[in-house]
Amino acid sequence: MSTKRRVTIAQIAEEAGVSVPTVSKVINGRPEVAPDTRHRIERLLHKHGYQRRVSQDEGPAGLVDLVFAEIESPWAMEIVRGAEDAAHEAGASVVISVLHTHAGPGRDWLERLAARRTDGVVIVASKLSTVVQAQLSARSLPFVVVDPEGEPAPGVASVGATNWHGGLAATRHLLELGHRRIGMISGPADMLCSQARIDGYRAALETAGLQVEPELIRRGTFLVDSGHDHGHALLSLDDPPTAIFAGSDLQAFGVFEAARQRGMRVPEGLSVVGFDDLPLSRSAWPPLTTVRQPLQEMAALATRTVLGMGRGEPPETRRVELATELIVRESTAPPRS
Amino acid sequence: MSTKRRVTIAQIAEEAGVSVPTVSKVINGRPEVAPDTRHRIERLLHKHGYQRRVSQDEGPAGLVDLVFAEIESPWAMEIVRGAEDAAHEAGASVVISVLHTHAGPGRDWLERLAARRTDGVVIVASKLSTVVQAQLSARSLPFVVVDPEGEPAPGVASVGATNWHGGLAATRHLLELGHRRIGMISGPADMLCSQARIDGYRAALETAGLQVEPELIRRGTFLVDSGHDHGHALLSLDDPPTAIFAGSDLQAFGVFEAARQRGMRVPEGLSVVGFDDLPLSRSAWPPLTTVRQPLQEMAALATRTVLGMGRGEPPETRRVELATELIVRESTAPPRS
Repeated sequence: MSTKRRVTIAQIAEEAGVSVPTVSKVINGRPEVAPDTRHRIERLLHKHGYQRRVSQDEGPAGLVDLVFAEIESPWAMEIVRGAEDAAHEAGASVVISVLHTHAGPGRDWLERLAARRTDGVVIVASKLSTVVQAQLSARSLPFVVVDPEGEPAPGVASVGATNWHGGLAATRHLLELGHRRIGMISGPADMLCSQARIDGYRAALETAGLQVEPELIRRGTFLVDSGHDHGHALLSLDDPPTAIFAGSDLQAFGVFEAARQRGMRVPEGLSVVGFDDLPLSRSAWPPLTTVRQPLQEMAALATRTVLGMGRGEPPETRRVELATELIVRESTAPPRS
Repeated sequence: MSTKRRVTIAQIAEEAGVSVPTVSKVINGRPEVAPDTRHRIERLLHKHGYQRRVSQDEGPAGLVDLVFAEIESPWAMEIVRGAEDAAHEAGASVVISVLHTHAGPGRDWLERLAARRTDGVVIVASKLSTVVQAQLSARSLPFVVVDPEGEPAPGVASVGATNWHGGLAATRHLLELGHRRIGMISGPADMLCSQARIDGYRAALETAGLQVEPELIRRGTFLVDSGHDHGHALLSLDDPPTAIFAGSDLQAFGVFEAARQRGMRVPEGLSVVGFDDLPLSRSAWPPLTTVRQPLQEMAALATRTVLGMGRGEPPETRRVELATELIVRESTAPPRS
């Protein structure tokens, strides 16, 4: 017996001027409701903070949903490993959903999710519309965002890394080696983590009394090809950089390729810093200097948080950023004098 | 209405001399049955080919279970991508289970699986005991093995790659370049794919009229460290090889490291061939010559097969091996004369 008063489906139906089964259909993600009606009902569910009653004897589903836009990079594997470890410890398994779009989870995904049980949803590096947020809340499904794309709505729990500090540390390391012309390749503009890394880079340059030059800042995807293409573009400048800070290890490997294709050696002719510290960065040639973000820990924390929320434990803080750390290996050296 | 006569739980109970609920407990993977009784019942279920009646109106669960021993390697990511693609196409999602043991799925996993619904199980590079096979069959759960560890039991559907041909092609390529002393590092002895790659290597040497020298054949795990350690061991021999064929791309990266630590250049001082063709092998330095196995296609085929079995479609062939292909890049060259 709950002590809080909860809005009922009947009240929502009355206020929306529809039948109770129509409200149920919307809550359960069923398709056969006209878009206008659906939106009206979703707004009311959201406004009243409707939460589906969960029968206690149903018990947990033993499943946590892990939602990716894409899983092309070994980056995703680190997230899967962390989430699986935390779920395994709690006696649960991880369901992988790949959206194959950067538009975020949509109707399709919601309908598929509605057809089965889950204990919670961890959304990785994807957009999250307010409609989907409202749908998840209406179904009493806890969710946590890892590396949010854009600022998460107030009250949404998220886990990330200290990207700004990472950008600062990487750029300071290059400045301390003596570099003055430092290129930066970051990720998509609409991802918070990309912007934070660029801002850390800017802060380091400005603190050192250097001007931030827009031609030295490039944006792409976090994959190898993007590092390769932007690496060539930076190295083709009339006054090319002597060092490049890449927004991901894969981009850094692409910069390695571009440098080799131009007959340049790393680090003798060009210093390169990555971001992530994927397991393979240690065995790359040269071994990659990079900013480690604790991907497995981030995913594990998000998974434990979502499982806790499912048991009625609110997250300790809504927004968590785990520490990044500069790992100096062999891809950075003083510039040629 | 099935036309085949099926054995009932009551008949099994009578033959085993136990109650009907005891048989139900065994079928549902519940723990509270004495081991002896459990084994007797499992043998009878297996002998009679008992299959649980699945209620038609339950419909598919929309979940395929993908079971790994470990997911440390980017190799696992390729399997996840292929399985997820095929499941997504069929409107299903993939559940990842990591056993964290090389002993194969056991009671724990079965009990967890029994607590929820699934449409089928794809078991990757793991042992599969006859007890677990019988349990899955008793629950009418279709399963397919990818890269079986050991010879799968008759009637078990499996998907692999033409590992023998891959080993042959890699070794022939090195022989054609003029190498005569070729080291081989393979995976665990109890994995079928490891043995097949060694046998392909042997066949190529024997066809070329060369003796197979046991000191040149090493076995380890498929990970970087194993390639590193066995690489050093091979290169420390009194008469070291001029080329090494590694059983995985990660092992090959470990051999790269070992060579660098000894001041040797690849391919000038040592040729290296890998196996897998992971996406990163193209961007490795030097870009890796390797045997491509179609990991995504293997996983997709296994997933489609298991979903088809769930709909009552038997697999076209029980044992499928998809073609491997030698990809020549820059890590192989003629030996120094």
